[in-house]
Amino acid sequence: MPDKIHILKIGGKVIDNREKRLQFISDLSQIKEPYVLVHGGGSVANNMLEKLGIEPIMINGRRITDSETLKIVTMVYAGLINKQLVADFKIFNMNAIGLSGADANLLPAIKRSVKDIDYGFAGDIIENEINTDFLLDILNKGYIPVIATISADANGQLLNINADTVASALAVAFAKNNETALYYCFEKKGVLSNSDDNNSVISNINKESYQNLINSNILHGGMIPKLENAFKTLEKGVNKVIIGNSDDIIHFFNKNNAGTTIQL
Amino acid sequence: MPDKIHILKIGGKVIDNREKRLQFISDLSQIKEPYVLVHGGGSVANNMLEKLGIEPIMINGRRITDSETLKIVTMVYAGLINKQLVADFKIFNMNAIGLSGADANLLPAIKRSVKDIDYGFAGDIIENEINTDFLLDILNKGYIPVIATISADANGQLLNINADTVASALAVAFAKNNETALYYCFEKKGVLSNSDDNNSVISNINKESYQNLINSNILHGGMIPKLENAFKTLEKGVNKVIIGNSDDIIHFFNKNNAGTTIQL
Repeated sequence: MPDKIHILKIGGKVIDNREKRLQFISDLSQIKEPYVLVHGGGSVANNMLEKLGIEPIMINGRRITDSETLKIVTMVYAGLINKQLVADFKIFNMNAIGLSGADANLLPAIKRSVKDIDYGFAGDIIENEINTDFLLDILNKGYIPVIATISADANGQLLNINADTVASALAVAFAKNNETALYYCFEKKGVLSNSDDNNSVISNINKESYQNLINSNILHGGMIPKLENAFKTLEKGVNKVIIGNSDDIIHFFNKNNAGTTIQL
Repeated sequence: MPDKIHILKIGGKVIDNREKRLQFISDLSQIKEPYVLVHGGGSVANNMLEKLGIEPIMINGRRITDSETLKIVTMVYAGLINKQLVADFKIFNMNAIGLSGADANLLPAIKRSVKDIDYGFAGDIIENEINTDFLLDILNKGYIPVIATISADANGQLLNINADTVASALAVAFAKNNETALYYCFEKKGVLSNSDDNNSVISNINKESYQNLINSNILHGGMIPKLENAFKTLEKGVNKVIIGNSDDIIHFFNKNNAGTTIQL
């Protein structure tokens, strides 16, 4: 069993840009420690939804998934993006296995109950049933798990799960037995104090400064659930959460001199 | 290692009908011997192509795959259909793993060279490099492999592969070390002598009668590559090929009293 596991999450901006994507995977080819790659792909899904005349609906960075939207995100995430990533790894002689949360019952899930907002076919992960054994098994055989964040409940209902949440839940599950680090890659260099200035990276955020950043309206949109997930993740035993740009992935692995490090 | 392996191929007609699909998977839940499920889904892909204003082009039952069509078939086969099938298995407490040919380098492929017809991004499998070890490993762990017939070449180019050809190539690869049977499930009860009469099943076809059936114009469309694959498969060591309806899957396993059996 490996001592240390890295969970990497990438989003639509790096996925949708072939040059950036291949550079990212080329960088990964230098990394010898085991990692699991979790991908979103919201912008790619939105393009497909628009082509089909379906309006994407997001609330606080989370998608409202009606039945038609569910079909499209399943196709885009688990089909197009997941398999293109697996294919890309071949270029660098790495052998990846693309999986959804439904495969091998990796991420058992239930449909989110309706409270204030009806998220539709959105899934919540049953965290204590995550199948880390299967992932460890394929990691030990040298395969790279690439995870699309679609899963299903016990009734065979497909469900869409927020990719940041999946990355966090996986990190927590691995943290029970392994030193675990979680990396959220997105389009910026880190969490920015000025969203127009990519050099205004906040190197460290703790719970106190997080609250101040929200109160002063510096954080908004998709960043809020990202940071909330980061804190939950750390509280559940994950050693390190870093938020930054996929261009800096090597720096994240070599030493902590890039992006934003989240601590309690 | 299991002694006997069954390769089952299903197409769009059973996939697209939820009731038939669930009955099929329910029937599979009674089968104790290991099997690999290979699926097409052409009719589902065609519906999506039409929604997007792309005209499906087929020649002799094989799809011409331009770059836009490749995206759609990757989404539909490896995404929507593959993950819905995996989710369906959960209903019957079976744990499936959906894979494309690119995953774990299951089906290494090259882009088909252009001879008479330019099939576009169609793949030919490098048959002696099929990763049966990975499939045997997950079969031994009790997982059910569900395979979408999208793969990729060494340059990361996704490729569309005919599902009947994939089923055949997998059967041949397993036949090196295992007793192997191959089942093509489609909408008819078997190969019919009168395509309007579902009771006119031809119980047995050999190479000689096949030629006669072609000469007398009884066989056409997608049936010709299906039977050609069947013969190639048998010549390469597979023990049995059966063509019939998914409704009869239990009969195929219990004894050979349904569908059409193909022999040399």
